[in-house]
Amino acid sequence: MMNKFTKGYLQKYRNISRDIEENYINLHPIQAGGRIPNDPKVLQTIIDFIDGYSTCDFCLTGKLNEISTPPICDLHEDLAIFCDMDSARLTPGCRQAQFSTIHALTSPNDTIIVDSLAHYTTYISAERAGVNIVEIPHNGGPLYELNFDIVSDLIQKIKNNTGKKPKLLFLTHVDYNYGNLNDTKEISKIAHENDIPLVINGAYSIGRMPISGKKLGADVMTASLHKSFASPAPSGLLLVNEPYDKIIFKSSEIQSEWSKRTFHNKEIELLGCTLPGVITMGIMAAFPHVINRVKKWDDEVKKAQFFSKAMENLGEIYQMGQKPHQHDILKFETPAFQKISDKHPRKGFFLYEELKRNKIWGIQPGLTKTIKLSTYGQSWDNLKYCIEIFSKIINSF
Amino acid sequence: MMNKFTKGYLQKYRNISRDIEENYINLHPIQAGGRIPNDPKVLQTIIDFIDGYSTCDFCLTGKLNEISTPPICDLHEDLAIFCDMDSARLTPGCRQAQFSTIHALTSPNDTIIVDSLAHYTTYISAERAGVNIVEIPHNGGPLYELNFDIVSDLIQKIKNNTGKKPKLLFLTHVDYNYGNLNDTKEISKIAHENDIPLVINGAYSIGRMPISGKKLGADVMTASLHKSFASPAPSGLLLVNEPYDKIIFKSSEIQSEWSKRTFHNKEIELLGCTLPGVITMGIMAAFPHVINRVKKWDDEVKKAQFFSKAMENLGEIYQMGQKPHQHDILKFETPAFQKISDKHPRKGFFLYEELKRNKIWGIQPGLTKTIKLSTYGQSWDNLKYCIEIFSKIINSF
Repeated sequence: MMNKFTKGYLQKYRNISRDIEENYINLHPIQAGGRIPNDPKVLQTIIDFIDGYSTCDFCLTGKLNEISTPPICDLHEDLAIFCDMDSARLTPGCRQAQFSTIHALTSPNDTIIVDSLAHYTTYISAERAGVNIVEIPHNGGPLYELNFDIVSDLIQKIKNNTGKKPKLLFLTHVDYNYGNLNDTKEISKIAHENDIPLVINGAYSIGRMPISGKKLGADVMTASLHKSFASPAPSGLLLVNEPYDKIIFKSSEIQSEWSKRTFHNKEIELLGCTLPGVITMGIMAAFPHVINRVKKWDDEVKKAQFFSKAMENLGEIYQMGQKPHQHDILKFETPAFQKISDKHPRKGFFLYEELKRNKIWGIQPGLTKTIKLSTYGQSWDNLKYCIEIFSKIINSF
Repeated sequence: MMNKFTKGYLQKYRNISRDIEENYINLHPIQAGGRIPNDPKVLQTIIDFIDGYSTCDFCLTGKLNEISTPPICDLHEDLAIFCDMDSARLTPGCRQAQFSTIHALTSPNDTIIVDSLAHYTTYISAERAGVNIVEIPHNGGPLYELNFDIVSDLIQKIKNNTGKKPKLLFLTHVDYNYGNLNDTKEISKIAHENDIPLVINGAYSIGRMPISGKKLGADVMTASLHKSFASPAPSGLLLVNEPYDKIIFKSSEIQSEWSKRTFHNKEIELLGCTLPGVITMGIMAAFPHVINRVKKWDDEVKKAQFFSKAMENLGEIYQMGQKPHQHDILKFETPAFQKISDKHPRKGFFLYEELKRNKIWGIQPGLTKTIKLSTYGQSWDNLKYCIEIFSKIINSF
């Protein structure tokens, strides 16, 4: 079978470049917050640390988060401060942070409460940990807001049905689908009255907007740095407040019977060191930029609100989710486009293709019933141009 | 607390470069196999995909391993062929691949058999999964070879003590400490006679030497691509043969009760997509180089054997582990250096410092009782120069 790998065959893995044009306006909802800063020095740091274990040149304790050259130790402390949480660990993705949390705080067959707008990784993390999910319902269209009033009843029902209270309350801070920003006041009150840890997934908030985990009432927060922290993938963040740090960041206790080895400097739920090498350095290099950009969050919200309104003004386009919108993730019902696709020879693909022809990128090919996009980091001019093109497309068919 | 982040304070995260000189000879045992290929086109691909979700531009099915532009789907198939295993998934590190395997194939309180030279991540993965470890002993110094004769007895003892057979046999193909290469014939025979899956950790073999998982008798193999596949970190590989693929790569089955969402395209033990973005592209760009380099494995072994012998010829230096050595990881007992450190004002640090002065890098600072290094990828001239310097150090004190 190895004969397959001729020079000609392997050509397909050589000289690969990203197949989209650099000067396109990219509205892709999962890509907007993960673009690395437009700063050649960030790229230089990344290139410098591109080899495998590049961050481990001066490791003294065998713990990634204690390395001081480069300042990975400081970075961990500062990421915790940045999110106003007690302690932080980098992880290879938000999903790993979610699973570590659920796995550490539950046992199989326990029940947890999850908001019904959670990302798929929350469901899969719970499934992998073998726990049952009870969902916080939302009120459906057009707002898709979560019904927190019912949470106390859910807790009581779980107690009645299983004899135990739910092991954690999981809330998605900003949902991936409608970009709804949740007020956490009510749910954190309920969580703490019932002594249940509140886990808040900040995949679409940490790195985009200023966050105080403590003000949000979080016991644990998770973040996706390749989604919202201008970082390369895979990169996530797990933030934990006392006393849950003692459980989630518990160190290894086993002693190998025969070889008598112990691993006290390794944290079980992190499987030891999490993110050696270039990704951590990408996060570090992005950090000063991210600190600056969250200060401009109000502008980002204004741009999203402008865009929402301008799209609706085109007619037969309706923004779904909260209004006025508080986040750059925007989902629209778009009968205006669907009507065109019904008659167009390229069917649902016409919209993607028309946009691409006009150097706009990131709308899912084939979809016209609804579209989802992000205005994050776009200039006002870019957004006005996009509105112009959407308008032109509607009018030309 | 955010006031801490002044421009001056954040300066420490800017313009960071790797604090070792490029023209040094790097003998660091965990870094040797993870250096990306010396090919500007590889770096160009990496830079091109540096933004967060850069590989997801043309994702159609929501599965990373099914993306065809760039050819991530082909890469998965070809990685399986390269290792002669049925199927492959990229993971954010070998430890994640190990944990997925143990978690999928065991239940808490089960027992597994692990070789006593396994890496710490194997122990921590088992600890996280809540399973008990019974170790295959080794015969101690100077060879540190595993005693496979005892494995059948261990299986019987576990059956007697727990009423169940061990759920898996875990063998480290090449151990991290002595660089011993294990013959798997005996243990794979025992595993299959007892119908117990054999998991082989190829962290130090896959990407360095030609591997046929099927000839090794593996049911599962794990690999560290930032350790041995010329790839940036974090990157690992999970290779599974039938019928275990159905368990380890099992798809999500839950249906969210309220929102009626299902996630059938997501694999539970992988938490869905594992490695979006730049790391996967680094692996892809390295792949043609790795296919070529494993063909030169015999030369690498010759260099290691030359180096071992030349070091021993310096006097009071003894290579630990198998002889003649079959791998580039070399550990030496070095009374020659320890004697110097006893009298040297810099104590154990003298060796590190003397080597660094002579542009040799990668020996753990402070250690002189034993030293560990890798000859992987070094030219004959470099290795001869290193021997010369080691000799000069011994003679000058």
